[in-house]
Amino acid sequence: MHTVIRKATCADIPQILAFIRALAEYEHLSHAVQLSAEDLERDGFGPRPYFECLIAEANGQPTGYALYFFNYSTFLGKPGIYLEDLFVFPELRGKGVGKALLGRVAAEAVSRNCGRFEWSVLDWNEPAIDFYRSQGGEFLNEWRIVRVAGEALTRLAAANGEVSR
Amino acid sequence: MHTVIRKATCADIPQILAFIRALAEYEHLSHAVQLSAEDLERDGFGPRPYFECLIAEANGQPTGYALYFFNYSTFLGKPGIYLEDLFVFPELRGKGVGKALLGRVAAEAVSRNCGRFEWSVLDWNEPAIDFYRSQGGEFLNEWRIVRVAGEALTRLAAANGEVSR
Repeated sequence: MHTVIRKATCADIPQILAFIRALAEYEHLSHAVQLSAEDLERDGFGPRPYFECLIAEANGQPTGYALYFFNYSTFLGKPGIYLEDLFVFPELRGKGVGKALLGRVAAEAVSRNCGRFEWSVLDWNEPAIDFYRSQGGEFLNEWRIVRVAGEALTRLAAANGEVSR
Repeated sequence: MHTVIRKATCADIPQILAFIRALAEYEHLSHAVQLSAEDLERDGFGPRPYFECLIAEANGQPTGYALYFFNYSTFLGKPGIYLEDLFVFPELRGKGVGKALLGRVAAEAVSRNCGRFEWSVLDWNEPAIDFYRSQGGEFLNEWRIVRVAGEALTRLAAANGEVSR
């Protein structure tokens, strides 16, 4: 299988949407997908892009995608890349597509002067953890991610005291 | 103590640098700080800003800061805010400055149509964990952050196979 990886453009929005839905289905989280084609266009290809996307193809057929954005390390004084989604259609796995996507995002990080390339993995997903370790990943095992969302976010925002711009 | 919170501008670069160095010193990580004033100017106040920064002041004196950037949820179809640094000078703690900064970043998230507000905490930092829980934070305890940096990043980038733009 000859894999070609290219940057997504707004012509790929229907395909990106299909990828995200396939990823959600694979994770049994289809009910959680709220995004639309309009969201992808505004947030990925408008004046203020929040993410970038790479698409893998073989013989002109889409096989997988990687979607990422930039974070920032105040200690390094450099941006970094955070990989939000990495997905290969289940029937096309084991052919190096995921590895090629991961490597290509790493190459993007290097070419954009990033100090780090990061992503997250579920702590029970041992095959993924082994694979990421084999690719040079170190695990920030002491760190926990905290999230405020929904009504808790509205409450926290409303509780914010006297402020000015 | 009357706290005022305002957006940082490039005139604040020396102060932001001082804050970051004070945070690193507090974490016994001063040796890890590589960033310069030039990095802050280019990455925070240039044509492609990688972060935004809020400064807390009392009586015109800086008391703390919050530095954050935007991530993206492909399930929600919305950006989110990730808080990289939150710091209050140790001698000024316990007066609500950290809480005011956290609330103000949450307000920023709401006003920018973000679905989530996230940050990370060390798993042994119980006072911080209790505080964040009291502010509505949920803990993504199953997730581990993976990082590829330094020579491992160069290697992963070089291993990336046949690609095209």
